[in-house]
Amino acid sequence: MLRWLTAGESHGPALVGIIEGMPAGVPLITDDVKKALARRRLGYGRGARMKFEQDEVTFLGGVRHGLTQGGPIAIQVGNTEWPKWEKVMSADPVDPAELANMARNAPLTRPRPGHADFTGMQKYGFDDARPVLERASARETAERVALGTAAANFLREVSVELVSHTTAVGTVAAPVDAALPLPSDVEALDADPLRCFDATTSAAMVAEVDAAHKEGETLGGVVEVLAYGMPPGVGSYVHWDRRLDARLAAALMGIQAIKGVEVGDGFLTASRRGSAAHDELQRNEDGTIVRTSGRAGGIEGGMSIGETLRVRAAMKPIATVPRALKTIDVASGEATTAHHQRSDVCAVPAAGVVAEAMVALVLAQAVLEKFGGDSLAEVKRNIDSYRAAIPGNLSSFGIASEDNEES
Amino acid sequence: MLRWLTAGESHGPALVGIIEGMPAGVPLITDDVKKALARRRLGYGRGARMKFEQDEVTFLGGVRHGLTQGGPIAIQVGNTEWPKWEKVMSADPVDPAELANMARNAPLTRPRPGHADFTGMQKYGFDDARPVLERASARETAERVALGTAAANFLREVSVELVSHTTAVGTVAAPVDAALPLPSDVEALDADPLRCFDATTSAAMVAEVDAAHKEGETLGGVVEVLAYGMPPGVGSYVHWDRRLDARLAAALMGIQAIKGVEVGDGFLTASRRGSAAHDELQRNEDGTIVRTSGRAGGIEGGMSIGETLRVRAAMKPIATVPRALKTIDVASGEATTAHHQRSDVCAVPAAGVVAEAMVALVLAQAVLEKFGGDSLAEVKRNIDSYRAAIPGNLSSFGIASEDNEES
Amino acid sequence: MLRWLTAGESHGPALVGIIEGMPAGVPLITDDVKKALARRRLGYGRGARMKFEQDEVTFLGGVRHGLTQGGPIAIQVGNTEWPKWEKVMSADPVDPAELANMARNAPLTRPRPGHADFTGMQKYGFDDARPVLERASARETAERVALGTAAANFLREVSVELVSHTTAVGTVAAPVDAALPLPSDVEALDADPLRCFDATTSAAMVAEVDAAHKEGETLGGVVEVLAYGMPPGVGSYVHWDRRLDARLAAALMGIQAIKGVEVGDGFLTASRRGSAAHDELQRNEDGTIVRTSGRAGGIEGGMSIGETLRVRAAMKPIATVPRALKTIDVASGEATTAHHQRSDVCAVPAAGVVAEAMVALVLAQAVLEKFGGDSLAEVKRNIDSYRAAIPGNLSSFGIASEDNEES
Amino acid sequence: MLRWLTAGESHGPALVGIIEGMPAGVPLITDDVKKALARRRLGYGRGARMKFEQDEVTFLGGVRHGLTQGGPIAIQVGNTEWPKWEKVMSADPVDPAELANMARNAPLTRPRPGHADFTGMQKYGFDDARPVLERASARETAERVALGTAAANFLREVSVELVSHTTAVGTVAAPVDAALPLPSDVEALDADPLRCFDATTSAAMVAEVDAAHKEGETLGGVVEVLAYGMPPGVGSYVHWDRRLDARLAAALMGIQAIKGVEVGDGFLTASRRGSAAHDELQRNEDGTIVRTSGRAGGIEGGMSIGETLRVRAAMKPIATVPRALKTIDVASGEATTAHHQRSDVCAVPAAGVVAEAMVALVLAQAVLEKFGGDSLAEVKRNIDSYRAAIPGNLSSFGIASEDNEES
Repeated sequence: MLRWLTAGESHGPALVGIIEGMPAGVPLITDDVKKALARRRLGYGRGARMKFEQDEVTFLGGVRHGLTQGGPIAIQVGNTEWPKWEKVMSADPVDPAELANMARNAPLTRPRPGHADFTGMQKYGFDDARPVLERASARETAERVALGTAAANFLREVSVELVSHTTAVGTVAAPVDAALPLPSDVEALDADPLRCFDATTSAAMVAEVDAAHKEGETLGGVVEVLAYGMPPGVGSYVHWDRRLDARLAAALMGIQAIKGVEVGDGFLTASRRGSAAHDELQRNEDGTIVRTSGRAGGIEGGMSIGETLRVRAAMKPIATVPRALKTIDVASGEATTAHHQRSDVCAVPAAGVVAEAMVALVLAQAVLEKFGGDSLAEVKRNIDSYRAAIPGNLSSFGIASEDNEES
Repeated sequence: MLRWLTAGESHGPALVGIIEGMPAGVPLITDDVKKALARRRLGYGRGARMKFEQDEVTFLGGVRHGLTQGGPIAIQVGNTEWPKWEKVMSADPVDPAELANMARNAPLTRPRPGHADFTGMQKYGFDDARPVLERASARETAERVALGTAAANFLREVSVELVSHTTAVGTVAAPVDAALPLPSDVEALDADPLRCFDATTSAAMVAEVDAAHKEGETLGGVVEVLAYGMPPGVGSYVHWDRRLDARLAAALMGIQAIKGVEVGDGFLTASRRGSAAHDELQRNEDGTIVRTSGRAGGIEGGMSIGETLRVRAAMKPIATVPRALKTIDVASGEATTAHHQRSDVCAVPAAGVVAEAMVALVLAQAVLEKFGGDSLAEVKRNIDSYRAAIPGNLSSFGIASEDNEES
Repeated sequence: MLRWLTAGESHGPALVGIIEGMPAGVPLITDDVKKALARRRLGYGRGARMKFEQDEVTFLGGVRHGLTQGGPIAIQVGNTEWPKWEKVMSADPVDPAELANMARNAPLTRPRPGHADFTGMQKYGFDDARPVLERASARETAERVALGTAAANFLREVSVELVSHTTAVGTVAAPVDAALPLPSDVEALDADPLRCFDATTSAAMVAEVDAAHKEGETLGGVVEVLAYGMPPGVGSYVHWDRRLDARLAAALMGIQAIKGVEVGDGFLTASRRGSAAHDELQRNEDGTIVRTSGRAGGIEGGMSIGETLRVRAAMKPIATVPRALKTIDVASGEATTAHHQRSDVCAVPAAGVVAEAMVALVLAQAVLEKFGGDSLAEVKRNIDSYRAAIPGNLSSFGIASEDNEES
Repeated sequence: MLRWLTAGESHGPALVGIIEGMPAGVPLITDDVKKALARRRLGYGRGARMKFEQDEVTFLGGVRHGLTQGGPIAIQVGNTEWPKWEKVMSADPVDPAELANMARNAPLTRPRPGHADFTGMQKYGFDDARPVLERASARETAERVALGTAAANFLREVSVELVSHTTAVGTVAAPVDAALPLPSDVEALDADPLRCFDATTSAAMVAEVDAAHKEGETLGGVVEVLAYGMPPGVGSYVHWDRRLDARLAAALMGIQAIKGVEVGDGFLTASRRGSAAHDELQRNEDGTIVRTSGRAGGIEGGMSIGETLRVRAAMKPIATVPRALKTIDVASGEATTAHHQRSDVCAVPAAGVVAEAMVALVLAQAVLEKFGGDSLAEVKRNIDSYRAAIPGNLSSFGIASEDNEES
């Protein structure tokens, strides 16, 4: 059972995460994590913080000489801004006199709409939103991306590759029938300002971001994550909480600012008639059975079907809007506007990278649950023998030996 | 930690479920479950099975003289059709000769598109889809509704009331700005053919169902679940898997045939600009702080905010389409069409009832996690003292005692 | 992840349990469960209830034609005494007038020492111990034995066989260096009045039971469970809660009346010097590496080592002592003595059967976690290829194929 | 739900642990953890490593200005020896030529009896025991002690105090009827060479350690953990895995080298007759109901009963015995003896500190499960109102307000 925990505050000394249950023998180096974190800073419309926030990555455990060792993996992501915050965010008590003079330490009493601030203060009885926003901040997703790197490296070794891309920014959306990016397209996607696979749409998205920026607005959007190479039968129909779609939905909805999740064609499917909503089965010339379409997003009955897995997440616009939102100063009781601390217009491209990490974590967990295995060699052996044991009359895409060889 | 398991096959002797972690003292009787199951059979466009499938409900444990006792609650939902199936679905071996003559026992070798059939056969190595469809069938949701009744009864005692309704069937959708039904509207909703709150839309939905029926088609749609009376601060922003939105997303996506989930305005929010996407804060005349809108669906930072909680699920059309879908007979390898076993056109109204049950289970779990308590009296005491301890300057809707009374 | 829940009260209509995560294809029939339940009623010194308590076993789900189907398995164990209790223990409300005349329904206000009664009343706010004892009763272990049958059947298919026996009753204990019973000795063990493998000790135990009975006393004792055929490496040293010894300890200590647990030589080991406390390694003539002793009980570093696994549990004497214990009538506040409702002197032989069931459940869970697999064939394949992949220089007992055959 | 993970290797850069689910407002500073870690190095018979192993403690998250903040708490325990190991244990690949010359990097091919080495190599397919011993090492318990500090601080705030002491070293055991140490005795216990509360026994233990040292032997022993101030009703009888005794057994057996666990009088109880095995109930002059003895160790029916909680763990002798144990060099296949790397004779006093930490973690988890609460104030409020709601006729030790004050 793959499980993981993250810790750390937005302005604390570091984020740290532990992932437990990863097999031994998975290639993993510091640079893999650094690259993943750099991808999370991508995207047109990001503010200054993304620039100066360099991520210092340190493995504290679980990896030796470039390979996982079977024990829990701990990844620390340092905060280069820590010296500015070490008094304000000190774990140990600090002389109150010293804190009194620090603007950074002033209580945050104007809870920001669209954030956890107000309810967090109620929940914990805080008279300052600082402890809430420090942990609720999307900065924490850096650690998810770090842990997701371990999961993605594992998946790659068992021939599963992930791709994430932006399908909508504000009202600008890629065409419904646009081609899906392949693993070989990832470099190009990362080079696109919005991580959008459709050039025309990307250009329109840039214009949308520029317009929003000019108007003191922020934007949300939609990201899609694709997984290529999943064997069929991962996840389960036998109990709701074993379903792969249920787990993916939780993982995506559990990302800060996500308000909607779809598998395959999602809400669009709900409006279709039955004869146009499902993926019919046919036999290929090579004898394997394939679906004639990909509407289900590669998941049926809560299981991967061995074809391209496809999920989407809808991100709300950044809640810290330059055109400030109305709130109450809870210290004075007066109406006021919310602090506006950063200048990002749109974080959708980064959300794609975070969504990719969460999908990696869930798929790795589900693969390990079905196939077991303490070492990468053992997992691979189990997957291969499962594929090999599927009888010819049930052979399908993702089973045939060619696929195994190529990946 | 509230947890539950269900068991049983579509044509087995019974479904049974156990829910563990429910406090003692919650009112619960057989009739509550029967009524909930009857609601699940509602809806225009259901086929014959819904009519003759009477549910026999038996508590096997956990309830005495109308009150939960603190131990696990077991609810059995009998299958009145069992005598027809007792050989075919017998747990113990049956004389093969006896089975050979039964049409009902013939192997199902034409996996139905949009179902778990084909992948389930691959996963388990079955040469017959029967074991797959028996468990993957939506019949299992009857047990979720049964267990959800216990959760809903608990929630009602702590002033949380649920309402579910249909917002779309096929391409017919209720207006975006339609009024939300209240707990007092449930009876009327259950009387509506589609469980739709908007009379005009309901009439159009009936027409849509009739048209689909005529054309040998099936329909999906969208259901919405509302929770009134949730205290603020249930769920959490501190770790992704404690987030209330993540858990609700899993619970809804984990229902058979659901392909999309939204919290509040969901995908619509992703297309809005920041200044029009969030719920601003203002102070009411009575001093409590309220949101000026409900776009977030009553969840911010993964927590209930004390206002109306609102989630939606998109259901694909019934996959057993009268205008039969293409498949392969895996016994012969020949192209064929899928079995068409029932005549339902649309199960969306029922899906609302199931979604309501899943939301009840998740909310009860999250409330118990925050407030603890072994008896209903203890839970209530803890909730009340939490509300009372929120200081005046953080008072909000859902805190003041009047709200408790009304809900 | 194998998981299970039980439900039901001692005098309720039935016990029921659900076990989820069992692979498909495991042989399992009603009679297997009945036999296991019959073994739980064995033992010299049991009272009348064990005689008339016939267990009616019904699979409600998960098994078809003698094989598990991959879905959750539900086993109902009926209570033949139910007609006597159906008013007193009715789930639905009963006319108070009707109850008022029933002696069986009188509140139990004299909490029994050594039972959950008193603290249970405090925990839940009950003014009657009935709801506590109904669920806290050891009757519930019948369901664990039922579920354990599924686990044991699975283990047998992967060449793991369990044996339980009594090593002490009161002050009478089998010699420390007594031979361990093998799977082939189970029948003889079940025929022994105390399920003791040493005939001399067994005779002394019978005398001890007779003496205790005469004096109005009860007895406890110690049971041991052995597992033959475990592959090495099940469980883990990487995190405490994955350790096989930790899980077994919880499973055994979680049985009613168990107060101590040992792995291998347990407390005796703690008193030994280092050179005499561990199992040294040597190479057998056939080249396999073996331990020269079995002090560790077949678990090192939280993992099975491939040799005989051995754990023990200490059971306190039955708390319902004929020579009644002092208590308080909480209705009157007066000192009194506890009810004495049954005449068992010693339940240790039954505890061995229950312990065996719990060990079966934990081992099955741990085997499935390491090896994965949805069908028995898949699990077997994964185990076999794991054994085969262990290189010759690390070959040990439990790896070579001969061992598989013999066990 | 309090949960935690640890990571890190014995010679890695650091150990790190994350504990999630701790309420906000619990006092916790770096020095608390340092002091706890210093206690873990106590004890007569420890070798050199304990001396030079200074623990560098850093909070990476979850604590601010001396108080927990509600989010996950991450504690890093640095390894001052890291510079010597940074090539050998480097996460990133190191030039093989550089490694080739390092004695420290030589493969460990002589698996040590009594350790995870041999089975760990089989499990993961390692040809070197290094990755096994690095994680299986008892060094990891330093992190458990670190996390346990947070739990213990929480418990202290809700009036629960823990004491651990040594009751046996080798064959030298404290008298069965020795007085139990109180929280006020902890300082004296920590000053005792063996952390033994009985001066005469302690002296004999010192002699036993000296004798073992002279003979090239190692020693095990028994430690006991006491918890004062537990409210009644924590844990549960309703399901085996909620039982407090089951959880404590797992937590103690999950410590490296522990082979036996007892609750209260444990195995001794199993040899007693019923009338002398249980704790009878009587009413004190002040009206509260108390037990006349403490044989059950403060747990009945899987619940704390509100009296002193008492558990014990049996530790096997250190497996790295100076008088070296027989093993096989798996590289050559030759018989040899195991490496002997450190000079500890006895680690029992340290095991007491580790056991105390594990008990703290489990009790904190169980308290939070029963009482809920996001802030310390909320937890306290819920506990207080629970105690206050227990009616007078069920009042017991641990309920009356005087007890609260004194503890």
